[in-house]
Amino acid sequence: MRTTQRLDDVTKTTRIDLNSDMGEGFGPWTIGDGVDEQLMPLISSANIATGFHAGDPNIMRRMVLLARTHGVGIGAHPGFRDLVGFGRRHINAPADELVNDMVYQLGALREFARLAGMSLQHIKPHGALYMHAARDEALSRALVTALQQIEPTLRLFCMESSVTFQVARELGQPVVREFYADRDYDLSGSIVFTRRVGALDPEAVAAKVLRACTDGVVRTVEGQDVAIGFDSVCIHSDTPGALALVQATRRALADHGIEVAGLAGTTAPAQA
Amino acid sequence: MRTTQRLDDVTKTTRIDLNSDMGEGFGPWTIGDGVDEQLMPLISSANIATGFHAGDPNIMRRMVLLARTHGVGIGAHPGFRDLVGFGRRHINAPADELVNDMVYQLGALREFARLAGMSLQHIKPHGALYMHAARDEALSRALVTALQQIEPTLRLFCMESSVTFQVARELGQPVVREFYADRDYDLSGSIVFTRRVGALDPEAVAAKVLRACTDGVVRTVEGQDVAIGFDSVCIHSDTPGALALVQATRRALADHGIEVAGLAGTTAPAQA
Amino acid sequence: MRTTQRLDDVTKTTRIDLNSDMGEGFGPWTIGDGVDEQLMPLISSANIATGFHAGDPNIMRRMVLLARTHGVGIGAHPGFRDLVGFGRRHINAPADELVNDMVYQLGALREFARLAGMSLQHIKPHGALYMHAARDEALSRALVTALQQIEPTLRLFCMESSVTFQVARELGQPVVREFYADRDYDLSGSIVFTRRVGALDPEAVAAKVLRACTDGVVRTVEGQDVAIGFDSVCIHSDTPGALALVQATRRALADHGIEVAGLAGTTAPAQA
Amino acid sequence: MRTTQRLDDVTKTTRIDLNSDMGEGFGPWTIGDGVDEQLMPLISSANIATGFHAGDPNIMRRMVLLARTHGVGIGAHPGFRDLVGFGRRHINAPADELVNDMVYQLGALREFARLAGMSLQHIKPHGALYMHAARDEALSRALVTALQQIEPTLRLFCMESSVTFQVARELGQPVVREFYADRDYDLSGSIVFTRRVGALDPEAVAAKVLRACTDGVVRTVEGQDVAIGFDSVCIHSDTPGALALVQATRRALADHGIEVAGLAGTTAPAQA
Repeated sequence: MRTTQRLDDVTKTTRIDLNSDMGEGFGPWTIGDGVDEQLMPLISSANIATGFHAGDPNIMRRMVLLARTHGVGIGAHPGFRDLVGFGRRHINAPADELVNDMVYQLGALREFARLAGMSLQHIKPHGALYMHAARDEALSRALVTALQQIEPTLRLFCMESSVTFQVARELGQPVVREFYADRDYDLSGSIVFTRRVGALDPEAVAAKVLRACTDGVVRTVEGQDVAIGFDSVCIHSDTPGALALVQATRRALADHGIEVAGLAGTTAPAQA
Repeated sequence: MRTTQRLDDVTKTTRIDLNSDMGEGFGPWTIGDGVDEQLMPLISSANIATGFHAGDPNIMRRMVLLARTHGVGIGAHPGFRDLVGFGRRHINAPADELVNDMVYQLGALREFARLAGMSLQHIKPHGALYMHAARDEALSRALVTALQQIEPTLRLFCMESSVTFQVARELGQPVVREFYADRDYDLSGSIVFTRRVGALDPEAVAAKVLRACTDGVVRTVEGQDVAIGFDSVCIHSDTPGALALVQATRRALADHGIEVAGLAGTTAPAQA
Repeated sequence: MRTTQRLDDVTKTTRIDLNSDMGEGFGPWTIGDGVDEQLMPLISSANIATGFHAGDPNIMRRMVLLARTHGVGIGAHPGFRDLVGFGRRHINAPADELVNDMVYQLGALREFARLAGMSLQHIKPHGALYMHAARDEALSRALVTALQQIEPTLRLFCMESSVTFQVARELGQPVVREFYADRDYDLSGSIVFTRRVGALDPEAVAAKVLRACTDGVVRTVEGQDVAIGFDSVCIHSDTPGALALVQATRRALADHGIEVAGLAGTTAPAQA
Repeated sequence: MRTTQRLDDVTKTTRIDLNSDMGEGFGPWTIGDGVDEQLMPLISSANIATGFHAGDPNIMRRMVLLARTHGVGIGAHPGFRDLVGFGRRHINAPADELVNDMVYQLGALREFARLAGMSLQHIKPHGALYMHAARDEALSRALVTALQQIEPTLRLFCMESSVTFQVARELGQPVVREFYADRDYDLSGSIVFTRRVGALDPEAVAAKVLRACTDGVVRTVEGQDVAIGFDSVCIHSDTPGALALVQATRRALADHGIEVAGLAGTTAPAQA
């Protein structure tokens, strides 16, 4: 289902997008180490939580302005309607209803962007919804079909190994393939989904990202390498020690001449 | 605070907008008599609930399409975040936070409009939020200021007697002044807010609307008339017997040569 | 997994419990025909919604008092935390977390019972949670284990064909086996789960219940009969025309000398 | 409205209850410094959040078990239904509806206590609900009347200066008067309510508590002392640096021969 060939645009990369989930608090609560303010200047794409699994209107407004300050591209990060489960529990619902949930959340963020004089760069479903779309063609097709009507140039974040990627290419929605710095991979090229992630070693994470950027491969839980094609590296802001992970990753990339840079000019490769 | 002079554009009116709250169910639940499908063809402006006091993404999508079918103008109907209280309980929150709540909801509906190839015609806060804005200058000012940045041509529904009306005129946001067919008025020209409304006599409601349209006055709870300037008549869809109220009102208006018609060409009077 | 022998206590029955879900509105909303007040005098056990899929504290208090007035046994009807989906969507969560959700809701209702000087008669999980428990031994075991600590005499409503029934018998929690008047059965003796049910013919429903009471069998969707052992008949209050279904069923039962009567003296058969 | 005389039982105290709000996270989120585990062994009464402003069933169960481990008395800490506002925004609702909300939450926690073989020691409304009850006789009367029916020996936490205190004494519900270590007082003997509190100096807080314990007075925002009668000292767990505040306070008390000890034998003074 995925292209296993090593993609030249990835392996010779001198710049890479770095995305992180931002604004995943709710009301009085912050997530992880609560380091959104410190992380924002270090990333190039922010997936802003849109209220169903995390995030609230006050946080969304603050995140949009923070991204604007630091020149970070913003995208909607819609999740299942499940605050208490942080959108990491699958909810069994028809594809069209889940797409309605995503349209709702996408619009909510777009209005804050509009208020700030910004445009949305992308959409990235969150957690269990992202994983469900990755495997469920009906949901991916319904989502991409809606995006085609709403904004056919809005980038859709997904894994190259996902059905979402296949459907987006088929229907012509631009995609941004992701590499997950803080998740394990299996031989299918997919991440191993988990509800909670413990602290990770920053240098190990940085080395993993660097290897993916330079060699286009990642070591799987099965012990073998698998080829990975991607346009953006994701580090979750709620992973404990997220700031250190991002800093170590940026250092390792910089040391090898790879710049963290936004997606502005890279729509085409994602669609290729 | 309000203009007590009788407005010529109202008293000689041959057409009037008729608005109603639509989509105020939630999940499996419907409100009032559950007659949105029957009401939509009879009104010219639909205030679509946006999820905080009522409404959910599935209902919103359905309502937008229903309005499109019947050529009805659509507006966002944001409320306090209070499903259990149906947005009819005041929540003590800072103006900027309440505006963020409204921006969020406004965008959510706009995205469904976009998906349906429609534009938003207006915004009308719901219930206790509408009444709070009517009296609270800080909230009205924060709301109108945000609207000026987001969409300076979006119509804001309000009462002529409200602070909202004053602030919108001052800052240049177009307004649509409302007359409430199914609420009591007091001498300030404001409606008497209530959490629940019982069944009303359709002919009495129709006569009240007709008198307001032809004479520009309404009998108050104090027993005297007060002058009322308005561009739209509101009949709540959750008032018991709402369908009969709307039908009787349309008949009475038609019998006197007044057509229920949308706001398309009436922006200017509202701003005058 | 289920006892296929015809149970003598069922086939010779002269009295049967009749249960219905009560209080499944939320805030301003009612469900189905909104006939809780008319239904309560006609049933002998009320499953009162406890706030996660439907029901709110005001409704719960009202339902408890209504049940007291009519001498109806009350039970907690906890669901998934999913108002918008009415608890009819499965949420993928660990058994211990789902049991915590049920303990929370059980206690909430018990406190209203306490306030009204009543005791709880039973607990019956709602919708997708009931169906999940019916198939998932981990959940049934965690639930029954918690009930054994909390109140080892509290009756647990379930299907005879369910894992819940097996686990409750094994651990000694009293059960009340249900027959669903308004749901289809398959050959496993389980109901065919659905998110929405249309209107049904009252006489057909009544005949189905009567046959189950007198012959201990039900016609399945596969076209064959299957033996059904049960202590209580359930008719959902949100099924359209629920009142007519209950009335027709009571008439048919009365015509054949079967009385609708509470569970007070029937603990033993349920445990047999 | 309050007794201004210095109470002998307070000024000669050799033991004092120390209470803190526990379990005020929600789903993936923790509040303040997230130090419930470290705080629990240092306090004698835990106000456990019950889900409306904070807390969820999983957290509630964990907190009950943690309190049991450390021999800490537990009480329900019900708030307004307002997660995003953390129960610190007033919601305008009738007294009977707010009491229903509290009964619901009280029962939810009681069930977890029952599961753990514990009894509830007290109830303490949270945030804006506590402040509302403190001033609103209708709410205090409705709450105490319900408690008299549910459990006339359940202690009600309140300020001596509050209407709640007056009503509880009148109707015979035992009370525990609180002194707030981390809030400012005014000359009415009430705390100055605030939605957010910044970091405080541990030694200053400790000295303030010690002075209240030994001299029965506190310095007000107006600059004068006011007499304070209390049976328990409250330090909020979401105040930044809460752990240091509690540790410093315990040290200061211990240095002056005052032991932090539970309420077990102190019902009578609270009612005196």
